[in-house]
Amino acid sequence: MTRSPLAPPHFPPMPDIPGVRLATARAGYKAWERADLTLAEFAPGTTVAGLTTRSRCPSPEVELCRAHLPQGHARALVVNAGNSNAFTGALGTEATRLVTATTAQALNCAEDQIFVASTGVIGVPLPQDKAKAGLEAAFAKLRVGSLATWEHAATAIGTTDTFPKGASATALIDGNPITIAGIAKGSGMIAPDMATMLAFIFTDAAITPPALQAMLAASADASFHRITVDGDTSTSDTLLAFATGKAGNPPLEASDPAFAQALTQVCADLARQIVRDGEGARKFITIHVTGADTDHAAHCIALSIANSPLVKTAIAGGDANWGRVVMAVGKAGEAADRDRLAIRFGQTTVAEHGAVVPAYDEAPVTAHLHGTEIEIGVDIGLGQGRAEVWTCDLTHGYITINADYRS
Amino acid sequence: MTRSPLAPPHFPPMPDIPGVRLATARAGYKAWERADLTLAEFAPGTTVAGLTTRSRCPSPEVELCRAHLPQGHARALVVNAGNSNAFTGALGTEATRLVTATTAQALNCAEDQIFVASTGVIGVPLPQDKAKAGLEAAFAKLRVGSLATWEHAATAIGTTDTFPKGASATALIDGNPITIAGIAKGSGMIAPDMATMLAFIFTDAAITPPALQAMLAASADASFHRITVDGDTSTSDTLLAFATGKAGNPPLEASDPAFAQALTQVCADLARQIVRDGEGARKFITIHVTGADTDHAAHCIALSIANSPLVKTAIAGGDANWGRVVMAVGKAGEAADRDRLAIRFGQTTVAEHGAVVPAYDEAPVTAHLHGTEIEIGVDIGLGQGRAEVWTCDLTHGYITINADYRS
Repeated sequence: MTRSPLAPPHFPPMPDIPGVRLATARAGYKAWERADLTLAEFAPGTTVAGLTTRSRCPSPEVELCRAHLPQGHARALVVNAGNSNAFTGALGTEATRLVTATTAQALNCAEDQIFVASTGVIGVPLPQDKAKAGLEAAFAKLRVGSLATWEHAATAIGTTDTFPKGASATALIDGNPITIAGIAKGSGMIAPDMATMLAFIFTDAAITPPALQAMLAASADASFHRITVDGDTSTSDTLLAFATGKAGNPPLEASDPAFAQALTQVCADLARQIVRDGEGARKFITIHVTGADTDHAAHCIALSIANSPLVKTAIAGGDANWGRVVMAVGKAGEAADRDRLAIRFGQTTVAEHGAVVPAYDEAPVTAHLHGTEIEIGVDIGLGQGRAEVWTCDLTHGYITINADYRS
Repeated sequence: MTRSPLAPPHFPPMPDIPGVRLATARAGYKAWERADLTLAEFAPGTTVAGLTTRSRCPSPEVELCRAHLPQGHARALVVNAGNSNAFTGALGTEATRLVTATTAQALNCAEDQIFVASTGVIGVPLPQDKAKAGLEAAFAKLRVGSLATWEHAATAIGTTDTFPKGASATALIDGNPITIAGIAKGSGMIAPDMATMLAFIFTDAAITPPALQAMLAASADASFHRITVDGDTSTSDTLLAFATGKAGNPPLEASDPAFAQALTQVCADLARQIVRDGEGARKFITIHVTGADTDHAAHCIALSIANSPLVKTAIAGGDANWGRVVMAVGKAGEAADRDRLAIRFGQTTVAEHGAVVPAYDEAPVTAHLHGTEIEIGVDIGLGQGRAEVWTCDLTHGYITINADYRS
């Protein structure tokens, strides 16, 4: 898999998180020569929060996370790559139970403190023998201290990702320095039999489960909920945050501005990296919508633009086709007045008051569109609502990856 | 433009409709050697009904049709191809007014009996001199009896269409034989700067405007509202029906089953032809959803499958990727129970009870997917709701047409 042309130059330096130990192993879920099982062990007392896919057909792993989240504590996370275990009936649920029971037994903890995520092909039950052998190999590594780095783990949770994704940040809570590290996978926001988004955040801060959940949900709204590659929604999307409490701060019982900001920074960094690894992506597109009735309306309009195949193919072709932006605003279903719309590409206003600007010069716009970092600005001209969404272009690469995959 | 591989072998034989006279002319909206202005003149007393785009940014032509529809009568339809006149501010509205006034003057009728539709590039005002000269040429042809055929008109309203689209049907109303003829354009359900759907239906039946509107709306639900190519919604979509009353039947004041059935047959035939001319289409896909909570839920699920880039690229690649169908069911937001889902491709059931069928043999499915007429069946297993939607695959051709268009 060729590394995305939008990938960062290298994996970022990332700090250890006290209370988190990582190991990877080869379960062999696919015929590849790489680690595909990741185990994260957490110190006792680690709290957890999470968000899962809105799909009405979720995987058993998603159901397991939902069932275990309410008690708020975690001792381990297991991530399988290469097989999503989704839509596999009773066999899939059995496999998830085996992973949970094996892990809980090794750690001598309650089963509801184990979290599992799987990503890859849909419809093939996770092979129980491979999962068990992989888990045992990972625990053996933990025992002898042969730990994995963040880069190892970020690579092992990937499927068709073309680069591993990590981000970190620090903050002060009541004067105590705390650290946040996160890893994610996804190539295309969603591609159920080969990508699907998973993201895991780890911190040494002490935070109660409700406070962690509230800050994670707010951070997701400002990051993972702002990205789209193809508008398709996975059966396995999972975002989990684990807080070990090793930083020694007085436990946070409510949202803390400094921690929330650092958490959002990590989530947004990871979300952007997922878009940069969008299937076939050659351009990173930021869509700013202002002047909508409400922030929610602005978000819907921005997503309508970001998900329009016609807008995305125009950008791929370097075509300043603002008519397609008008089309996407019109189809969003939110309040819009054609004669108040203004549209810009990069810093150049192309249309305002419902028509192209006088003496429109396409040259600077075309130059902007031939770069790899594209900005589309739309002012609706009605109110104060605003939103920002990140996406990528739609290219022959997307078709090749998704249509020609098995032919 | 290469004729779509899914096109019918030839334009169908179509009957004249008493009370309708057609002429085409070269307005020269683009640098092409073909007629691009179509004039349909209707006998006095002709009634009209119509549906227009749901876009919040409609063209001035759409606004004009909406303003003229309530009085219920029509003397002429003018269709411009090559320029949609959408998003052109005051200049666009002026151009529409000129077309209306010129036509009303030639026919010595009220301006609100003139209907106009334009399709093509967005954002360039319709050139008034070309429109006026084209109209005068068309009227000159009507005067000398140099009439256009249905095939001429269906060709003249097209833009990037690769074949002209027509359909007709007959019915009996109270023992009187009546005839319906329809033409349509669209290459992709929607492509605002080059396609957009227009469809026009003509009949010699006598029908009051409210009865015609009711039957047209019902027929659209069973035809044009069932198709999608890329999920994008045009600024110019227009469906108009004209009834000249020349068949001599007692005027219909309410829906008539025989007429309604014939009208739906014509609309469905045209709608399928639009999908067969979908940008880059190489396979025609019928999606049947059964067992949903309601018909509306079934329709939403069917559209979610039909609009999924991942499902459409899988079909393009001949890949029996039923996991992507599960994904699209899950993201539709309607009630679904993973463990009751059943999925078939063609006549072969692939998955049921939430998992792949025992001893699944992919060979017949792959054979089906290598044809050009694809069927996907999904049973939700919850209720009696059902729906059928028509779409096409997503291929490199779509990207080439839409991304590489100007490069």
